[in-house]
Amino acid sequence: MPRPSNLPRFHILPRLPYDPPMLLHHSSWPEVEAYLKRSKGIVIPIGSTEQHGPNGLIGTDAICPEAIATRAGAEADFLVGPTFNVGIAQHHLGFPGTLTLRPSTMIAALHDWVSSLARHGFERIYFFNGHGGNVSTIEAAFAEIYADASLAQDASNRGPVRCRRVNWWDFKPVMDFCKERYGSSHGAHATPSEVAVTYFLQPQAIKHVEMSPKVAPWGRYTDADSYRAAFPDGRIGSDPSLADPKDGEKLIALSVAGLIEDFRKFEAA
Amino acid sequence: MPRPSNLPRFHILPRLPYDPPMLLHHSSWPEVEAYLKRSKGIVIPIGSTEQHGPNGLIGTDAICPEAIATRAGAEADFLVGPTFNVGIAQHHLGFPGTLTLRPSTMIAALHDWVSSLARHGFERIYFFNGHGGNVSTIEAAFAEIYADASLAQDASNRGPVRCRRVNWWDFKPVMDFCKERYGSSHGAHATPSEVAVTYFLQPQAIKHVEMSPKVAPWGRYTDADSYRAAFPDGRIGSDPSLADPKDGEKLIALSVAGLIEDFRKFEAA
Amino acid sequence: MPRPSNLPRFHILPRLPYDPPMLLHHSSWPEVEAYLKRSKGIVIPIGSTEQHGPNGLIGTDAICPEAIATRAGAEADFLVGPTFNVGIAQHHLGFPGTLTLRPSTMIAALHDWVSSLARHGFERIYFFNGHGGNVSTIEAAFAEIYADASLAQDASNRGPVRCRRVNWWDFKPVMDFCKERYGSSHGAHATPSEVAVTYFLQPQAIKHVEMSPKVAPWGRYTDADSYRAAFPDGRIGSDPSLADPKDGEKLIALSVAGLIEDFRKFEAA
Amino acid sequence: MPRPSNLPRFHILPRLPYDPPMLLHHSSWPEVEAYLKRSKGIVIPIGSTEQHGPNGLIGTDAICPEAIATRAGAEADFLVGPTFNVGIAQHHLGFPGTLTLRPSTMIAALHDWVSSLARHGFERIYFFNGHGGNVSTIEAAFAEIYADASLAQDASNRGPVRCRRVNWWDFKPVMDFCKERYGSSHGAHATPSEVAVTYFLQPQAIKHVEMSPKVAPWGRYTDADSYRAAFPDGRIGSDPSLADPKDGEKLIALSVAGLIEDFRKFEAA
Amino acid sequence: MPRPSNLPRFHILPRLPYDPPMLLHHSSWPEVEAYLKRSKGIVIPIGSTEQHGPNGLIGTDAICPEAIATRAGAEADFLVGPTFNVGIAQHHLGFPGTLTLRPSTMIAALHDWVSSLARHGFERIYFFNGHGGNVSTIEAAFAEIYADASLAQDASNRGPVRCRRVNWWDFKPVMDFCKERYGSSHGAHATPSEVAVTYFLQPQAIKHVEMSPKVAPWGRYTDADSYRAAFPDGRIGSDPSLADPKDGEKLIALSVAGLIEDFRKFEAA
Amino acid sequence: MPRPSNLPRFHILPRLPYDPPMLLHHSSWPEVEAYLKRSKGIVIPIGSTEQHGPNGLIGTDAICPEAIATRAGAEADFLVGPTFNVGIAQHHLGFPGTLTLRPSTMIAALHDWVSSLARHGFERIYFFNGHGGNVSTIEAAFAEIYADASLAQDASNRGPVRCRRVNWWDFKPVMDFCKERYGSSHGAHATPSEVAVTYFLQPQAIKHVEMSPKVAPWGRYTDADSYRAAFPDGRIGSDPSLADPKDGEKLIALSVAGLIEDFRKFEAA
Repeated sequence: MPRPSNLPRFHILPRLPYDPPMLLHHSSWPEVEAYLKRSKGIVIPIGSTEQHGPNGLIGTDAICPEAIATRAGAEADFLVGPTFNVGIAQHHLGFPGTLTLRPSTMIAALHDWVSSLARHGFERIYFFNGHGGNVSTIEAAFAEIYADASLAQDASNRGPVRCRRVNWWDFKPVMDFCKERYGSSHGAHATPSEVAVTYFLQPQAIKHVEMSPKVAPWGRYTDADSYRAAFPDGRIGSDPSLADPKDGEKLIALSVAGLIEDFRKFEAA
Repeated sequence: MPRPSNLPRFHILPRLPYDPPMLLHHSSWPEVEAYLKRSKGIVIPIGSTEQHGPNGLIGTDAICPEAIATRAGAEADFLVGPTFNVGIAQHHLGFPGTLTLRPSTMIAALHDWVSSLARHGFERIYFFNGHGGNVSTIEAAFAEIYADASLAQDASNRGPVRCRRVNWWDFKPVMDFCKERYGSSHGAHATPSEVAVTYFLQPQAIKHVEMSPKVAPWGRYTDADSYRAAFPDGRIGSDPSLADPKDGEKLIALSVAGLIEDFRKFEAA
Repeated sequence: MPRPSNLPRFHILPRLPYDPPMLLHHSSWPEVEAYLKRSKGIVIPIGSTEQHGPNGLIGTDAICPEAIATRAGAEADFLVGPTFNVGIAQHHLGFPGTLTLRPSTMIAALHDWVSSLARHGFERIYFFNGHGGNVSTIEAAFAEIYADASLAQDASNRGPVRCRRVNWWDFKPVMDFCKERYGSSHGAHATPSEVAVTYFLQPQAIKHVEMSPKVAPWGRYTDADSYRAAFPDGRIGSDPSLADPKDGEKLIALSVAGLIEDFRKFEAA
Repeated sequence: MPRPSNLPRFHILPRLPYDPPMLLHHSSWPEVEAYLKRSKGIVIPIGSTEQHGPNGLIGTDAICPEAIATRAGAEADFLVGPTFNVGIAQHHLGFPGTLTLRPSTMIAALHDWVSSLARHGFERIYFFNGHGGNVSTIEAAFAEIYADASLAQDASNRGPVRCRRVNWWDFKPVMDFCKERYGSSHGAHATPSEVAVTYFLQPQAIKHVEMSPKVAPWGRYTDADSYRAAFPDGRIGSDPSLADPKDGEKLIALSVAGLIEDFRKFEAA
Repeated sequence: MPRPSNLPRFHILPRLPYDPPMLLHHSSWPEVEAYLKRSKGIVIPIGSTEQHGPNGLIGTDAICPEAIATRAGAEADFLVGPTFNVGIAQHHLGFPGTLTLRPSTMIAALHDWVSSLARHGFERIYFFNGHGGNVSTIEAAFAEIYADASLAQDASNRGPVRCRRVNWWDFKPVMDFCKERYGSSHGAHATPSEVAVTYFLQPQAIKHVEMSPKVAPWGRYTDADSYRAAFPDGRIGSDPSLADPKDGEKLIALSVAGLIEDFRKFEAA
Repeated sequence: MPRPSNLPRFHILPRLPYDPPMLLHHSSWPEVEAYLKRSKGIVIPIGSTEQHGPNGLIGTDAICPEAIATRAGAEADFLVGPTFNVGIAQHHLGFPGTLTLRPSTMIAALHDWVSSLARHGFERIYFFNGHGGNVSTIEAAFAEIYADASLAQDASNRGPVRCRRVNWWDFKPVMDFCKERYGSSHGAHATPSEVAVTYFLQPQAIKHVEMSPKVAPWGRYTDADSYRAAFPDGRIGSDPSLADPKDGEKLIALSVAGLIEDFRKFEAA
């Protein structure tokens, strides 16, 4: 990790040069109060902090949905909350740098996030996800949240909270792009598409690593040890050396369009 | 929340133009593996997502320690992890946009973060905190983590994990600056110093709001309702209209210096 | 609920006229001890207790995998444990008779079942599932079980436990049969296939109900209230009046074959 | 565990040739809805999956109350729910095949079962128990359920739930029968009476084992290791080789009568 | 609650004029270290803080076992720990002053107490109980503690912890005394025997109240509301106006003798 | 631990020769009911059971606030509850006799105590604390209690509960006394002031131990092992051989005055 000498040091730039109020954490409370008069919906990016192979960023799964949601919120004028950045990654614990929550912890945390938002009057909580390994626990968390309401002894005097989870790659144009661009080198973990998105967003973090084998193997795994045994460098079925920042820009645009359309439907339901 | 027309749209810039490997989430796992050979220490920024008065950003308490830690890590070559961005803010729930964890949830989550890091061989976990309201629960979480080890039936074959929590304003030069610069207008919540830091970092989110009264009242509170009754616009004892981005830059530099020195001592202990 | 007069009363027949030792609960502990010398694998049927439309049994999702697993174990000589019979059914709580666990409870319970089995030396725990709504929480439970092991301070002196979850309808011949036999009347909940299986197994519980509309609607739902609003009689997209016990017998045979093959692979992995 | 050649294979018979609607899991939701108009009571069989000595079935404690409750419900026209089949059996973990919940898990699960039933309007939940080791935790679960209601901030708009736990052998005629029939060979675990009940119900699972010593010792135990040290083959004070299916039939009839009378009183209270 | 004028005010006397080192909380750590060289056993008084009828002290169930254990420890030279003074009393919450833990909380707390003692080398933890309503949860806590050890992945390198629970009135001479002295006026809650013990220990707190009816009714209850409905003044089947301090002194002596004998057996097992 | 021969044996004195009704546990429920008509406030002493150096009592941190609160309640006519006597002491687990709760357990227990009191109508719960190590977890517990109310779906029909925590040494006259009397020998753990209080209250437990070094070292610690390594005899910065019962009497009087004044303010707020 030598320091690249051509990078400026100690100078901090504004990070998000968009329309500012669309991020909850860049808003003031009166701005949120005003927003709630025109919408009950919010998008929460949700990711993971886990190994992404030899050239992928550990934060990939949080970086992607955060950037896409931020851009979509700015474009379409909806609120985006802070990123839930550590998720379920126990199967990656064999690789240094991976953080995981236990699923029971994540369920409790999501419960608290949603309850907080519900107290303010939010009724449509849209989790925009960057990690396949989160899906089960997010769905379990929704069931926990709904069950608490369903089993409570009294009917609430608040409107019901409805939650939705969508992955940033779920939109057909995104999947079509990946299929066409990477074919059988796309794989299932540390994919060239997600790495491309992060390389577009964080060009200073681009890592040039030769893959060996070129395309990683497929296989099954259970826990962290079995994962590392099956996938020695962390990749599954992918060749992330194909990652190109320009493709990342394209993928972002495709996913932004999908998110805006899908969120609007959910908000209106 | 009208959109300022002079802001570029839909263009995503690299966010952190520093030496890249010093962020865990911008590193690859082999980079973290290499880092662990020369250090067992890491800094985790920890904040809150809560109202910060009429002109303060809801994300203030996460934004400040994240930026300071990032800059310090880049300068002094130590690793900085992802930001724990939602903390204990129940007393701010009377204001829209505030998110809180219950303390028991936060203890569980910090336990998981620390356990994950410990599995990889990290032995000095330094939480760099941006929210006074987090302090009790962070300290409780440390006791929980240590108790689990102390009460376990078997001695571990790993080295012990040691945790430390420091607030970004704890360093004497930072406190001196605030005292001198703001005097009795500094207050205890939504302070001009923290707002100044965020205004330097996120100039597009600067909010011009006249304060009434100029300096907010002091008082006691217990829960969210009593807080809002005592502090109708969310501030305690402060006049954040004094916030100036240039002061923010200065405060960052002072805190960076303090953090580097204190972390090095902790890492070496 | 009038009593059918042609049924014998108060006479209890043996329930499972198969090879007895293949059910854990019909075995003695020395029989299990002997079994463990030749296999480390076990199948645990897992279902739900929830409404299944106007003519479906509330226990459908437990009855199906229990019967299929029992038959498969008897045929192929592997051990089948007791049925985990109440799962995640909060979205069905709008209909009387539905029971649900909260996901956090189910995770704790599955953890205990697996830990108990692991203590005896079982290393391949195969959950044979009858309820789509359980899938997320079962997967979350696996992650919880693995995380506890991965984050523990000491390496175990036991072999690792590996878990797998398969739904009884996941095998291609089963799905082909449903597609061919029911086409667009199969639907997603209270399907004619699952009802047919229970009608074959429990003919005394066959209920003749006219469906209105003939085929139930499709749609989205979040919690129990939204489910009942969208699906007034509990069905989703199905016409379970097509359920025929003879098809049930066929489906059982197809699923038994799939289970035997898949379990053998898992056991050997 | 050789297969007895005289047993039919692969043929599945109806399991419960009684009046069908008295089992919750064999009912449809409209049938349960109708039932609730005439009764607010339900019986939940609750057992354990644990070693029962050299010739006893591991599922004994679930099989007995399930069969007795099923027969009683059919005879007296009350609803019987699914069987809670894994309970508190940590002290039997020294013997292969035993499963246990931790008491805190069982409390959570019983809470969810009761809350689900209460949501539908059930107000009298009668747990019919087959395992002495469950008693403490079931009683603790009742206290937990009541405490949650008592400590809640608002009075419920539902009627109160009342719970009761009775063991299948608690009725005087059952105890008299055991005393007279087995005398000092009855013992406290793996008793001839419970084995006889399972042998009547599952004759294909009868195991002919010579006991040595004829009558097992008595003694104290704390955890699983101390239990196995004190009771090497799992029995306490009993000679289960006395188990005769005909006695099992008698015991069932005696317990059915007791249950019907006791449940009717509870339902009416 | 007028103040009795004949009582000294503001003067604090030594509370326990016995041999001092037999109380853990009056010992220093080197004294406990020395004790552990000659014994691995300790007695923990455990009670409740709950209504005890019109003339009984709310702390009765903690005061009795604490005083008896303290005296027994002093006489027989064994260590007595602090009193676990709030237990399971949800059914008494209808009466002001009652405190309760939820059973799940009590299990966690007892787990922590026992784990702490086990870390120091205590292997025989004897809970001396003053409240019938605690019994189930204490037994459940023991099972939880043992289950955690039994299900752990590694054998401990510590000796096993064994726990025992005995009520202060369990010894035959105590029960004989109550039977003979109070007959059918003894009852089941707010009994003259327990009140007599507290009146001997705390004569300044003696309350002269006429009972109406003289002997309280018997009956069943479930939750706090049903308890208060059945037992309007809190007593069950008792006439505590019979409580005489002199009987309290006698009961203490009888129970002390029983405890010493029983603890010695347990300690030696 | 030889028995001092001059102490009376087997004779139990009244422990608290004050106005009796001011202790919750020495009151009857009608007395508490009457109290609630004139006050909604109560004081709960809260301490710890942990090593206090070579001559300090393990129960010091519970004994001090209990005695001070008891005296203050008697003097000023307010109610004092039972003492929460085991707290957060994991860092002292290296010394025999220390007991600790995990913070998550303590949060749950405090939640239950406060919820019980709130059910009876108490609205001002004042925790009077004897242990610095408890502070964080007590504050976290307050946040948990408030968060549960704030995040609940319905507004309560009860008044809000407000909690406050004050340490017995927090009052200026107490701190001034310590500073003046002990100077730099006061230290931070096992201080002469707290030992003096216990020596006044429990003169039979006075332990004459020579300190070596005279004044203990200062330093940092994390877990139990690091604490014992840094402070071999358990003291931090103190010389508790200076403890004199007469100073204890003085300190009690000073703290009683502070508590009465502060509680009255809180009660009236």
